[in-house]
Amino acid sequence: MVTIKQVAKEAGVSVATVSRVLNNNGYVSQEALTNVKSVIEKLNYKPNSVARSLYNKTSNMIGLIVPDITNPFFPELARAVEDVAMIYGFKVVLCNSDQEPEKEKKYIDLFKQQYVDGIIMTAHSYESEIYTDLNIPVVALDRIGNTTLPAVVSNNYTGARKATDLLLQKGVENIAHIRGPRGVAPAEDRYRGFIDEVNKKNADYIIEESSFQLEGAEKKAREFLRAHTDVDGIFCSNDVIAVGVLKEALKKGIKVPEELQIIGFDGSFFGKMIYPELTTVSQPIYDMGAMATRLLIKIIEGNKPEKIFYEMPTTIIERSTTRK
Amino acid sequence: MVTIKQVAKEAGVSVATVSRVLNNNGYVSQEALTNVKSVIEKLNYKPNSVARSLYNKTSNMIGLIVPDITNPFFPELARAVEDVAMIYGFKVVLCNSDQEPEKEKKYIDLFKQQYVDGIIMTAHSYESEIYTDLNIPVVALDRIGNTTLPAVVSNNYTGARKATDLLLQKGVENIAHIRGPRGVAPAEDRYRGFIDEVNKKNADYIIEESSFQLEGAEKKAREFLRAHTDVDGIFCSNDVIAVGVLKEALKKGIKVPEELQIIGFDGSFFGKMIYPELTTVSQPIYDMGAMATRLLIKIIEGNKPEKIFYEMPTTIIERSTTRK
Repeated sequence: MVTIKQVAKEAGVSVATVSRVLNNNGYVSQEALTNVKSVIEKLNYKPNSVARSLYNKTSNMIGLIVPDITNPFFPELARAVEDVAMIYGFKVVLCNSDQEPEKEKKYIDLFKQQYVDGIIMTAHSYESEIYTDLNIPVVALDRIGNTTLPAVVSNNYTGARKATDLLLQKGVENIAHIRGPRGVAPAEDRYRGFIDEVNKKNADYIIEESSFQLEGAEKKAREFLRAHTDVDGIFCSNDVIAVGVLKEALKKGIKVPEELQIIGFDGSFFGKMIYPELTTVSQPIYDMGAMATRLLIKIIEGNKPEKIFYEMPTTIIERSTTRK
Repeated sequence: MVTIKQVAKEAGVSVATVSRVLNNNGYVSQEALTNVKSVIEKLNYKPNSVARSLYNKTSNMIGLIVPDITNPFFPELARAVEDVAMIYGFKVVLCNSDQEPEKEKKYIDLFKQQYVDGIIMTAHSYESEIYTDLNIPVVALDRIGNTTLPAVVSNNYTGARKATDLLLQKGVENIAHIRGPRGVAPAEDRYRGFIDEVNKKNADYIIEESSFQLEGAEKKAREFLRAHTDVDGIFCSNDVIAVGVLKEALKKGIKVPEELQIIGFDGSFFGKMIYPELTTVSQPIYDMGAMATRLLIKIIEGNKPEKIFYEMPTTIIERSTTRK
């Protein structure tokens, strides 16, 4: 393997000069710069990034903390983060926190020891304190923890209003909202959007609460459809709940969308795998991940971003669980 | 931040002794060991892992190369790898290769520079050469590249035979197999399993080929169901193809499983999100990821594993796309 010494010798400069070229800091004459760069290319020198880490206290690594990569929202996010990171020469360390503060702390300790350059976190609101006194740049994604942190979120509130409005426009007379868990920020925002829209329209409504997981959602849907046979339109707080409702409705022989219209939230890929296909409020998951990564890298590189809070628009994808 | 010098001073030993304790190599007296460990705890000393990397040429990092984390098979695998890695104190760097050799090579260069300790790869057969002359331990997962590499795979051949047998046992008279892309090892193994089983039973059969993605599978299913109205049982090479077939059958008003029985392969979570729920050959995805990671760490730590090839059993999950 070619060493920095060999590069310096071949270029006829000091090791310190090569180091300045590699790290892009300190004065280097134009001549030396051109010379060193051509030698690096000629010898196919690959700077030892661990040594550079130690010297620069950077590692070209981004830590990505998700609750659980198997939750359908996060693979697309992770993919976007990795795609953008790679363009800028950063690697992505994947961490599943299960939203346990202990695990998150452990990861953050590791990140510090390893000179991780920045963190993208998608954590629960109540654990955000551990991010605020870090010396590492952090961008919050999706489930925003603390509003003083740079963040990229989707417009959950507006998306929920649009979904509710669509159901009412499509002739729903007895509307319901199956909301997500209390205290989870997106679930709260979607709930507020629903409430404000039905109140604006003076519509009666029913609220039910479910977990964001399939098993809980199916159970809740079963009870709900038994208890509320007159409900003809349900806005569900995420796509998984919507799938639970759809499955239970089909099992009971309820015609979707003729007798019951359903809208989910997220725009997950499995909305297209079911039949009838799910109408949903789509979040630009990939764009959110890409935007968060670009924002983080901007901060890592010492540039002041124009703004540190991005709210990305949601769009309704009308498929077959709502009427034409 | 506490430094190694402070630990050495407080413990009354040399920096070299502390280093030997930290790196767990070289002679240290029992007394010094106990002493250093208690000082480390007392001062809450966090060894600088970047400096250790440079010294030891290790980084406590595992590189995980998947084709695409948004492909439903891989999040669960990544989760398992990360869970096990964390137990042993390793971090996981996530890489999406899109099965492009160029991207894989780029990642591997990065891994070398960073002293990544080992690689778990799930790559296409024809790109495996780039892994064989590495000085970094590699374990192949799922899509085995080169049989000289340690590998954890599932028993695709036997799973396919079982699925075919089940369809025939459930009264299927005109059986078909929609196979996956040519040259993809699991698709080939499942195809062989199907062929051997129908030949053993002297059953007539039809073969069709599809991509492993939903859009291609739906299109193929549409054509297939139009052309082969007498087929009453289909073994699909993965769950995505099975979902494509199911959707098209339901659209055409074909009753599943009364008129058409369907079996998928993978055991993906979305098999439970559709209605009727999908009968499938389940791979122990999480167990495969966990096993591969344990095997890799064993090799990294210099232990000779008992064996380097693990074939994990598949199991049929009977749900509602096959008859009772």
